[in-house]
Amino acid sequence: MLVFILNAGSSSLKYQLMNPINKEVLAVGICERIGIDGILKHEFGDDQKIKIETDLPTHKEAIELVLKTLTEGEGKVIDSIDDIEAIGHRAVHGGEEFAGSVMVSDAVINKMKELIPLAPLHNPANIMGMEICQDLMPGKPNVAVFDTAFHQTMPDYAYMYPLPYEQYTKNGVRKYGFHGTSHYFVSNEAAKMLDKKHNTRIIVCHLGNGSSVSAVFDGKCIDTSMGLTPVQGLMMGTRSGDIGAGAIQYMMETEGWNIKEMLDVLNKKSGIVGISGKSSDLREVLEGAESGDDRCRLAVDMIAYIIKKYVGSFAAALDGVDALCFTGGIGENAALIREKVCAGLDYMGLNIDPVKNNKRSGEPRDISTNGSRGRIFVIPTNEEYVIANDTYKIVKGLE
Amino acid sequence: MLVFILNAGSSSLKYQLMNPINKEVLAVGICERIGIDGILKHEFGDDQKIKIETDLPTHKEAIELVLKTLTEGEGKVIDSIDDIEAIGHRAVHGGEEFAGSVMVSDAVINKMKELIPLAPLHNPANIMGMEICQDLMPGKPNVAVFDTAFHQTMPDYAYMYPLPYEQYTKNGVRKYGFHGTSHYFVSNEAAKMLDKKHNTRIIVCHLGNGSSVSAVFDGKCIDTSMGLTPVQGLMMGTRSGDIGAGAIQYMMETEGWNIKEMLDVLNKKSGIVGISGKSSDLREVLEGAESGDDRCRLAVDMIAYIIKKYVGSFAAALDGVDALCFTGGIGENAALIREKVCAGLDYMGLNIDPVKNNKRSGEPRDISTNGSRGRIFVIPTNEEYVIANDTYKIVKGLE
Repeated sequence: MLVFILNAGSSSLKYQLMNPINKEVLAVGICERIGIDGILKHEFGDDQKIKIETDLPTHKEAIELVLKTLTEGEGKVIDSIDDIEAIGHRAVHGGEEFAGSVMVSDAVINKMKELIPLAPLHNPANIMGMEICQDLMPGKPNVAVFDTAFHQTMPDYAYMYPLPYEQYTKNGVRKYGFHGTSHYFVSNEAAKMLDKKHNTRIIVCHLGNGSSVSAVFDGKCIDTSMGLTPVQGLMMGTRSGDIGAGAIQYMMETEGWNIKEMLDVLNKKSGIVGISGKSSDLREVLEGAESGDDRCRLAVDMIAYIIKKYVGSFAAALDGVDALCFTGGIGENAALIREKVCAGLDYMGLNIDPVKNNKRSGEPRDISTNGSRGRIFVIPTNEEYVIANDTYKIVKGLE
Repeated sequence: MLVFILNAGSSSLKYQLMNPINKEVLAVGICERIGIDGILKHEFGDDQKIKIETDLPTHKEAIELVLKTLTEGEGKVIDSIDDIEAIGHRAVHGGEEFAGSVMVSDAVINKMKELIPLAPLHNPANIMGMEICQDLMPGKPNVAVFDTAFHQTMPDYAYMYPLPYEQYTKNGVRKYGFHGTSHYFVSNEAAKMLDKKHNTRIIVCHLGNGSSVSAVFDGKCIDTSMGLTPVQGLMMGTRSGDIGAGAIQYMMETEGWNIKEMLDVLNKKSGIVGISGKSSDLREVLEGAESGDDRCRLAVDMIAYIIKKYVGSFAAALDGVDALCFTGGIGENAALIREKVCAGLDYMGLNIDPVKNNKRSGEPRDISTNGSRGRIFVIPTNEEYVIANDTYKIVKGLE
């Protein structure tokens, strides 16, 4: 059983070939600069890598190249595309229509098209990926796995914005949340690691280039930090996260920006890069802070403080915490951020063990002290596995 | 020692005449509809009330009428304005210039004028009130008490927005916070009610028509929910509070609103009135919820949930809580909101006593169970006393 996992962006395309039963990954890669020129980076076997530079005018040529690379020449890992049993697509915005993964059909694609206004950059690329796969691999099942689906269990008082009600009924304005496959995967792994089996209260901090927090009660998401779009919530690499509407108005009027220009600043020039003035990459900013750069120090303090306040907020939403989980590039690797977030959380029963926290490992691990009432976990995320496994279960009729 | 306390708004003017030493209030009133037609409501003595309808073209005529009413005729409480020793002005935005109350001078008024862009409705009215008092009561000291001052102790990682840094250095874009006199008064009263005298961790929920939360460590504000302007933070009567920037862009593009129209919706048509569709007055919405109106139920759930999450967030900022305080019209009177906010906060050591919570009283009181590790207080706020007392201390050179 092999699943071809596709994550189609506006000018890029990430893929994996995975066996969801034993989690074996046969190949992983990315096509970049689609429509500009084109480059394929392909990893396979025992850390082998190839790079192909060639013209990729559209996503179609990109997917053709990937399928050719998987089945022919140096990067070959399967004999033919017949070895691929199904395709699992990462899909960004499922609105309120999709509370779980679904077999792709015309009806599903039409619904996703209706949702384009909510994700104008992502959904069109996702749909394109699905249609090209239907075209290039006719008869093979395609499954859509939505970034928003896991958050559909939020209660209304958590997902509604305090706006005129018709903004919800008429325009669908509400919190949807993102990174759902990661929040699902990590909270599910954490639940297995806990002794407690019922009424589990789990907070997941997915900290990467994009970052979000979720509160998961008994396996169901009850709140998350991202909103209608991913610009809300935590401070990120280039995104601001939460910001007052009055500040938005004030900046627009002072700078003469329109709302599109304003959101461009909030999406691309804010967050870590905005405060530090140095980089959107936390590693560089941590180095800057260490060498005495005060704006880097401020960026690090802000990142940790904002995460800590979300942890506090979601602990209140969950009436306490059994496990606090860190995942994503920053969550899995930045020990200092974890340390700062967890400092002083004794009052909610969380105590971090500095020695365990500073040990590096790619494995799921408990970094809390033995005496800590609640657990603190570092759990590497695996969104591709969720996509492959959902695809497998749907194709096999197991779900 | 009598202080005339003035709170000048754009078309209204609230006043009190108070002795800050014994807290005795000789008169309290309001001029409304200034510039439209004009009405004065004046209360004095033993629950006596008078109402005068007359033309009030500007704030000058309004203040003249107030001074006349205080010293002549039916509403008279003093023999002459010479009995007024000083005037204390509520001033909204002190920016980073004013971390405490100050004697009004030309320099102070000029600074306040520079801050008008940050409070375009409030600061001009406040300045007008000061200038008219200087004119009508020459030689009497005027003191400005800023709504933002108490929050000036916030650390940078709490007051900075995750924006391009120059938005702070160039435009002063940061969190300032409001309701400072109330947060100061209530946290100070709470500190007196605690056994613990050092490193006190106090959360104040000021819940009225406008609402905000603050975190106060050892008497100093370390965080608050309002931002550059009062539209940020909690869900309020007509204000949205926190909302994603992506949702703002989406609504503006969908509805064809400009940013001014958008902020009008967020300031005047959102929050309790937006969700309930019924009223901005919580009492009516609580009644609606009780009689089965689902949008009223949702509004009540949202108000309480959002406050509860801020309590959780600020508990994390404070590394735990010694006292959670409720104040303001809603905070002092809405037992159901307090009950919902405090439900499930056992994990942070807070347990509300339902019997104590449901007892009505105008006095400061402890509504937590005897066994609760942290205290839950209801403390009627008294912003006018803070203004009068600051004025007294500054005029007497005590501060």
